[in-house]
Amino acid sequence: MAQSIDLLRSPVLPSGFRASGISCGIKGAGKLDLGLLVSDHPAVSAATFTTNRIKAAPVKLSMRHLKKGGLQAVVVNSGNANACNGKRGEKDARSMAQAAAGALGLEEGQIFVCSTGIIGLPLPVEKIQAVAPAIVEDLRPGGLRDFSRAILTSDKRNKVVSARISIGGKKITITGAAKGAGMIAPNMATMLAFITTDAAVTKAELEVATKSAVATSFNCISIDGDMSTNDTVLVMANGAAGNSSFRAGSTASRLFRQALARVMLELAWRLVRDGEGASKFVTIEVLGAATQVDARRVAESVANSSLVKCSWNGSDPNWGRVIDAVGYSGARVDEAKVDILFGGLAGAKGGKAARTPIARLKAAVAKKEFTVTVNLNIGRGSHRVFTSDLSEGYVAYNRLEYALKLQGR
Amino acid sequence: MAQSIDLLRSPVLPSGFRASGISCGIKGAGKLDLGLLVSDHPAVSAATFTTNRIKAAPVKLSMRHLKKGGLQAVVVNSGNANACNGKRGEKDARSMAQAAAGALGLEEGQIFVCSTGIIGLPLPVEKIQAVAPAIVEDLRPGGLRDFSRAILTSDKRNKVVSARISIGGKKITITGAAKGAGMIAPNMATMLAFITTDAAVTKAELEVATKSAVATSFNCISIDGDMSTNDTVLVMANGAAGNSSFRAGSTASRLFRQALARVMLELAWRLVRDGEGASKFVTIEVLGAATQVDARRVAESVANSSLVKCSWNGSDPNWGRVIDAVGYSGARVDEAKVDILFGGLAGAKGGKAARTPIARLKAAVAKKEFTVTVNLNIGRGSHRVFTSDLSEGYVAYNRLEYALKLQGR
Repeated sequence: MAQSIDLLRSPVLPSGFRASGISCGIKGAGKLDLGLLVSDHPAVSAATFTTNRIKAAPVKLSMRHLKKGGLQAVVVNSGNANACNGKRGEKDARSMAQAAAGALGLEEGQIFVCSTGIIGLPLPVEKIQAVAPAIVEDLRPGGLRDFSRAILTSDKRNKVVSARISIGGKKITITGAAKGAGMIAPNMATMLAFITTDAAVTKAELEVATKSAVATSFNCISIDGDMSTNDTVLVMANGAAGNSSFRAGSTASRLFRQALARVMLELAWRLVRDGEGASKFVTIEVLGAATQVDARRVAESVANSSLVKCSWNGSDPNWGRVIDAVGYSGARVDEAKVDILFGGLAGAKGGKAARTPIARLKAAVAKKEFTVTVNLNIGRGSHRVFTSDLSEGYVAYNRLEYALKLQGR
Repeated sequence: MAQSIDLLRSPVLPSGFRASGISCGIKGAGKLDLGLLVSDHPAVSAATFTTNRIKAAPVKLSMRHLKKGGLQAVVVNSGNANACNGKRGEKDARSMAQAAAGALGLEEGQIFVCSTGIIGLPLPVEKIQAVAPAIVEDLRPGGLRDFSRAILTSDKRNKVVSARISIGGKKITITGAAKGAGMIAPNMATMLAFITTDAAVTKAELEVATKSAVATSFNCISIDGDMSTNDTVLVMANGAAGNSSFRAGSTASRLFRQALARVMLELAWRLVRDGEGASKFVTIEVLGAATQVDARRVAESVANSSLVKCSWNGSDPNWGRVIDAVGYSGARVDEAKVDILFGGLAGAKGGKAARTPIARLKAAVAKKEFTVTVNLNIGRGSHRVFTSDLSEGYVAYNRLEYALKLQGR
């Protein structure tokens, strides 16, 4: 379904949005680390946030601003998560919103604030305040690329996607930018995504569309099973396309939801492909589970098993480790019915080794992208999760990060 | 409490037990891969098994034999888990029991069978049948070392522990041998432990003592969070010490339980120290949780976080990743009350960075063994988990294992 929406070759911001990204000195060495995304008019907005009980200060502030309504801008810094900084962190998040609001001539409550980076270091908010006029000055319809680069942390590539649909003869653009490369788990972890659209859409419709698109995209990816304090997906719709509004259940609504889901799914896939140390993109497809919940349990259990992920890194069709993770997932399982396939080739059939020659299974897992199918053959529950392998590169990267960041302290 | 029991410098089998370990050719290259442990008389026995819903054939068979009572011997092979082999696997597990029973002159139902190694490859049971007379021939009171080596898989060291106590003037020995180095999670994963004692003890008393000792030892360790199809802890008590039996609540009972727990805890620690690629031994101590269940959730969440484990590998006192794992553990948390300590030094105090100089925190985490304390400061729940770091060596080992094993196929 969602795959039938075409993506633009060159992503562009929807009408009535401008963006910019500059270096304010948090990361140092002239790296882009502050992004601003602005709608010419207040936008209907919806968002989902981390379910981590420890939430960063900007997350708590943005939750309040979202509730008020009338959002018109997002300011994002990278290099510092402004999480676990106590009262000072909350004050700094507000100062960041105030700095952006002042330079834009908006109210503080119209600013959505995000931070991503290291936890527990005070945010040097004065650096953001100092460049607020400059980043506003730099706003332009073509500023998406700089914005998307300014929000990155350990990502190797920026991630921007646009889709275009037509509703009632009006051209509607949906464009998203995302970041996140580690600490990624279902329920969104250390990832930020900002989706803008010029569609005219009601708040209720946008909320439903956002929730359902997140459920099948960002909540279906897992890199390391960790879930961060800062995750946020924000969707802003400013109505500049001038389409007449549509209601739930209409063809227009279906098309809009499908396009939004497509943009988010593509961003989610790019997050997995850019995962820290990832060398493979693996789809875990669970079929035949007793319930949907069981299907999800199995998919996540397999996706989060270090042993399974190491085997993929070695191009090893190790279905024994997969069935082991199936067994401890908590899902109902009848061992004698479990089939496990690599790229469509049976590794295990009915809970034991299938006859497929090992060389063929190895070739399937040696690919850069492949699907592992687990069919429990006891019901109709199904679920898909997108994940990566676990490499020595992941460990090498993550054993050093914090120590390096603190060299300057 | 449990620490006050002294361990013997040179572990020995309790009276009335003999053991042996030989090479039957499953692993090849003359490596020890078949162990036998026999009591001169039927032993009162208790066991705990994997909670994985996919259970290996020998686990299912041994559960039945344990229930019958009258166990007198354990036969264990390494190199092949005999898991996920369908009906053939069940037949092979029985053949293995029959081979041992035949050579020992016992009933099939008196034999406890265990297998450990690769999942999903048929067990070459004829190799075991061929050497059954030889391994019985080789049984001797001093055979514990060979037995303990024959049950190893990816372990670098064999693990044997003895404790001695005195009850009513009779000297009682409790001795355990264990294996397991990866796929280790709470609720016992890819680990086997065989504890023998010459104590005279009732079945009810042994069952309670076993359950409680496992709960505070093998169920409190985690290497990679994976839980295998074959885990088993067996305790056999043959009464050869000649003590008069004791009842629950007596001083003798307390002493016996304490000694059994001490032996299991020491074995559990050795499993963690010998973890695949492990370079650190880390105790996670959670205090002040709202409930015991919450304390356990937090400890396991921290112990199973790949990001946290990588930071330890890099001697990085990264409390931000720790508090992140605390936040998504599902436990009740008040961010402003959370303290995180490394080796007793505060990394975070009240949910934000403490003033301890980074150099001192780094020195604490650079040690080979250290404790990470998480104090939630909201209740009285506490729990301890013993775990290791995540290294490039873990990945390098686990990306290759299965592929190598299958070279011969």
